[in-house]
Amino acid sequence: MLLLRCVHSLSRISPRSVQRYQVAPALATCGLHRCSGDQRSYQRAQSPSWTYALTGLLAGTGAVLAYGLQHHKGQQAKTSEVQTTEKISAFPIFSQEEVTKHRSLEDGMWVTYRGSVYDITEFVAMHPGGDKILLAAGGALEPFWALYAVHNQEHVLEILSTYKIGELSAEDVKKQQTVKSSDPYSSDPERHPVLHVNSLKPFNAEPPPEILSDSYITPSAFFFKRNHFPVPQVDPASYRLHVEGLPGGTLTLSLEELKTRFPKHTVTATLQCAGNRRSEMNEVKQVKGLNWGIAAISNATWGGVKLRDVLLAAGYRPDVAQWALHVQFEGLDKDMTGTNYGASIPLNKAVSEEGDVLLAYEMNGEDLPADHGFPVRVVVPGVVGARNVKWLGKIIVSAEESSSHWQQNDYKGFSPGTDWDTVDFKSAPAIQELPIQSAITTPEDGTVIDRDREEITVKGYAWSGGGREVIRVDVSLDGGKTWHVAQLRSSDEGKAPDPSPPLGKAWAWKLWEITAPLPAEIKELEIVCKAVDNSYNMQPDTVPPIWNLRGVLSNAWHRVKVKIREDLSGE
Amino acid sequence: MLLLRCVHSLSRISPRSVQRYQVAPALATCGLHRCSGDQRSYQRAQSPSWTYALTGLLAGTGAVLAYGLQHHKGQQAKTSEVQTTEKISAFPIFSQEEVTKHRSLEDGMWVTYRGSVYDITEFVAMHPGGDKILLAAGGALEPFWALYAVHNQEHVLEILSTYKIGELSAEDVKKQQTVKSSDPYSSDPERHPVLHVNSLKPFNAEPPPEILSDSYITPSAFFFKRNHFPVPQVDPASYRLHVEGLPGGTLTLSLEELKTRFPKHTVTATLQCAGNRRSEMNEVKQVKGLNWGIAAISNATWGGVKLRDVLLAAGYRPDVAQWALHVQFEGLDKDMTGTNYGASIPLNKAVSEEGDVLLAYEMNGEDLPADHGFPVRVVVPGVVGARNVKWLGKIIVSAEESSSHWQQNDYKGFSPGTDWDTVDFKSAPAIQELPIQSAITTPEDGTVIDRDREEITVKGYAWSGGGREVIRVDVSLDGGKTWHVAQLRSSDEGKAPDPSPPLGKAWAWKLWEITAPLPAEIKELEIVCKAVDNSYNMQPDTVPPIWNLRGVLSNAWHRVKVKIREDLSGE
Repeated sequence: MLLLRCVHSLSRISPRSVQRYQVAPALATCGLHRCSGDQRSYQRAQSPSWTYALTGLLAGTGAVLAYGLQHHKGQQAKTSEVQTTEKISAFPIFSQEEVTKHRSLEDGMWVTYRGSVYDITEFVAMHPGGDKILLAAGGALEPFWALYAVHNQEHVLEILSTYKIGELSAEDVKKQQTVKSSDPYSSDPERHPVLHVNSLKPFNAEPPPEILSDSYITPSAFFFKRNHFPVPQVDPASYRLHVEGLPGGTLTLSLEELKTRFPKHTVTATLQCAGNRRSEMNEVKQVKGLNWGIAAISNATWGGVKLRDVLLAAGYRPDVAQWALHVQFEGLDKDMTGTNYGASIPLNKAVSEEGDVLLAYEMNGEDLPADHGFPVRVVVPGVVGARNVKWLGKIIVSAEESSSHWQQNDYKGFSPGTDWDTVDFKSAPAIQELPIQSAITTPEDGTVIDRDREEITVKGYAWSGGGREVIRVDVSLDGGKTWHVAQLRSSDEGKAPDPSPPLGKAWAWKLWEITAPLPAEIKELEIVCKAVDNSYNMQPDTVPPIWNLRGVLSNAWHRVKVKIREDLSGE
Repeated sequence: MLLLRCVHSLSRISPRSVQRYQVAPALATCGLHRCSGDQRSYQRAQSPSWTYALTGLLAGTGAVLAYGLQHHKGQQAKTSEVQTTEKISAFPIFSQEEVTKHRSLEDGMWVTYRGSVYDITEFVAMHPGGDKILLAAGGALEPFWALYAVHNQEHVLEILSTYKIGELSAEDVKKQQTVKSSDPYSSDPERHPVLHVNSLKPFNAEPPPEILSDSYITPSAFFFKRNHFPVPQVDPASYRLHVEGLPGGTLTLSLEELKTRFPKHTVTATLQCAGNRRSEMNEVKQVKGLNWGIAAISNATWGGVKLRDVLLAAGYRPDVAQWALHVQFEGLDKDMTGTNYGASIPLNKAVSEEGDVLLAYEMNGEDLPADHGFPVRVVVPGVVGARNVKWLGKIIVSAEESSSHWQQNDYKGFSPGTDWDTVDFKSAPAIQELPIQSAITTPEDGTVIDRDREEITVKGYAWSGGGREVIRVDVSLDGGKTWHVAQLRSSDEGKAPDPSPPLGKAWAWKLWEITAPLPAEIKELEIVCKAVDNSYNMQPDTVPPIWNLRGVLSNAWHRVKVKIREDLSGE
């Protein structure tokens, strides 16, 4: 039955109609690897028509991503119509809760797409993209297909349609959010189940690392979430932003005024949590804080107005710099006592033409999602996530830094010899620009690969704060004894790279990749990466000497161990 | 005879006239340590009047440095008169060459001061400042006394006078430089013999490290010298600076015009050679380049005009930035084929109000010395020494970087895996901003200290490029297992610290110091330092992973081994 269904689907993909694009080695290997575990699908993958068809499907992921997003957006308008049509179908209705239970081969692998529910358990082994399909289990396909836009083709939809088993309940389709007054977090938005949750309330989560390196621009659904409190519900119509502290008095702006009175700018900037990779410090000695892996970092294109323009409209003049040193931000999110989240940045970063600080109302071309600060957040390129205040309520120009806990008594770095008995938070400056960073997103630690693969592809990200451009990533397969230079890119694969940013304005990360032969007679690889920025800053070698009691600024070389399985046939 | 002479001299230092200042522990210990090797002088050092008098002499070195320099300058005018008087004395005449031969206890320790020659061999053991006096042997005392200004007192001159043995020859006093046409280096200026010479022609030399941490501002005589060619002889009257490449055509300025047409600015900035600490890379694997120790870095106060002001006068307007990206500099120094030294910096650094790039004609309040670019050099704060072009002849605003060897095929960083067969100089950016750096200036590697000293004082410098301020230096006595936070200072000891520099404008280094108890039952200390800047960049742990074929950017943790001698009496 499965065989028949597949043949039926595949017959629609004529080899003649598919060009033989060159496949990125990682994807090709990945597909073969998955197949090698399943003899039946392996044979199919080797048949010429299947291989070529998939090659075509897989090629140019990056190139068609923009199209895919557009296409997806265009389709959204039609969704309700489609649903109305499909509602009279004979398929049973499932809730999102029920769908979410099906996330493994044992329980079945269910996904949703445009209001329909699909059981793709049997398709998993045949998925040309390999294991990645597992990430989508229990949730919606849309964000994955936005990321891997190759799926936005008629043929793929036809394959998918053969696995349909039901409809998603109308409530879940509409994602109606019933506010339960007893739980301040009950109005938090829905999140994608693929995120690894470090804390549910407040919500703090990161995507699987491999997703990061699959898209130069991280789709908003997968962008790491770092909330301190419940997500505030902000009505865009009544929203007001207050700008205080300047000689002209308070300037108050509605969302509409913000969007219409000032020119719109877009900036592609990477944000990173100060605690990214904290889990590696925890392995040395316990620290306080969320146990982030390597994915509390993401890259997005932000749209909004320049903070500089708004400050000028509010009365900022150069002589203000004689007394003012900081620009404070207050979020609309607050704790149980009513204290709002707050932070500040240096005035010269805020008002500099080169600083590119945005009051952003768009993320990746759409309204800011609730988790990312709807309707307005600050984006401070090159500066630690904590200063990129979300749900922005107030801007205050001041002689003083923000007096908030997060500016004064958190997000600071200390010596490894400093403990909670001796720490003096006044002795260290608040983190602003972050140091050089890089990590390996794939393979993941503990991966086993077959000797007959002959080579290994390693991928990751690299970024530095302060607009310093990453100029090189060195990768070692032997724990740091010998080094190879990785290939950098600042766009999606197959897409023309963005032109080099002006000096000091490299706000976005670089993705990197290297394919190297498997060293002979080695049973385990210790893969290491380290990046260099254009001030030639390097990452420290090891974690213990940079360990600090809050587990911030964890930027030692990233290390991943991979085992090589010598004899595939014997297993 | 020695005893009598000392008693005679000391009797002039009345205990009543000397205040009991607090002595910096390092200096006090140092004095005692030297004495402990010589029982006779040890006893004298312990006598109350001697101790108190020396305490007074040693105190406040920093506080009186400014006075000392002034005083010294004032005295210079009187020198010829003094010499005339002394010339009719009965002392024999010695040449500088002869003096220079006397640099050890075996050969005798001679020094010169204001035209006289002194044999201080017997005084060495009694010197309150300990071993430091050895540095002056064979050369002039003046630069040391400018540094350790406590010597500029009547009493000290009286002590010195008792050791006079002769006059310095008139030629050497006048430091007449006879140009020998056969040697292009024959007109190079005299240098202080204390400098450690890495290359004589061209002259490349660094001071003993301990001198660096003894003065926040490095005296010009001790400032590291990095020349590529013979020092050009420039006549200040006919000197012309040409500014080219701007729409208004070439602007030509005489030295007088430069000094009078533009406001004078002073900037205290640390310069560092890209090859500082190269010798540590050579220990890993041979690199190409001068074998610099840790002292190819120094700090001075530069006086001159802002490059920005000169560019504006030459026709620079913001629209120039639409096509121009670089400002090139050409030195008047050149190789045998007539090729001038050259380098460039990014245009935005050159024209930014915040960049503080100077066309300097003064160093530490005096005309630039010949070795440092007389009459005009560029000072690019926060940027590698190589771009701070000396003997500046030409400035060119351009769309291109300097095409010079030093911009294109030198002063770039590469992966440790890159060798001379595989290197592609185009693949790496020219070094501009330098990464975080620190080193231990005292104790030096291999020092033996006595267990009964009970504690150890470690001193050093720390600096970061790009105006990033050093915020912390961690010091370990156990090879990096445990860490202590050192005390930072940004002025001379005892002097009020300079106010914190504005964000992004920390151009000068910080000196640091830590005194820690000697760990019990340890026979050898491995002292390590590492610094952190305000972007929280850290130094890499070890040298091999940052090794590169040119041996530049050597900024791993600095390590020094010190032995502890348990039983002093047995030796």
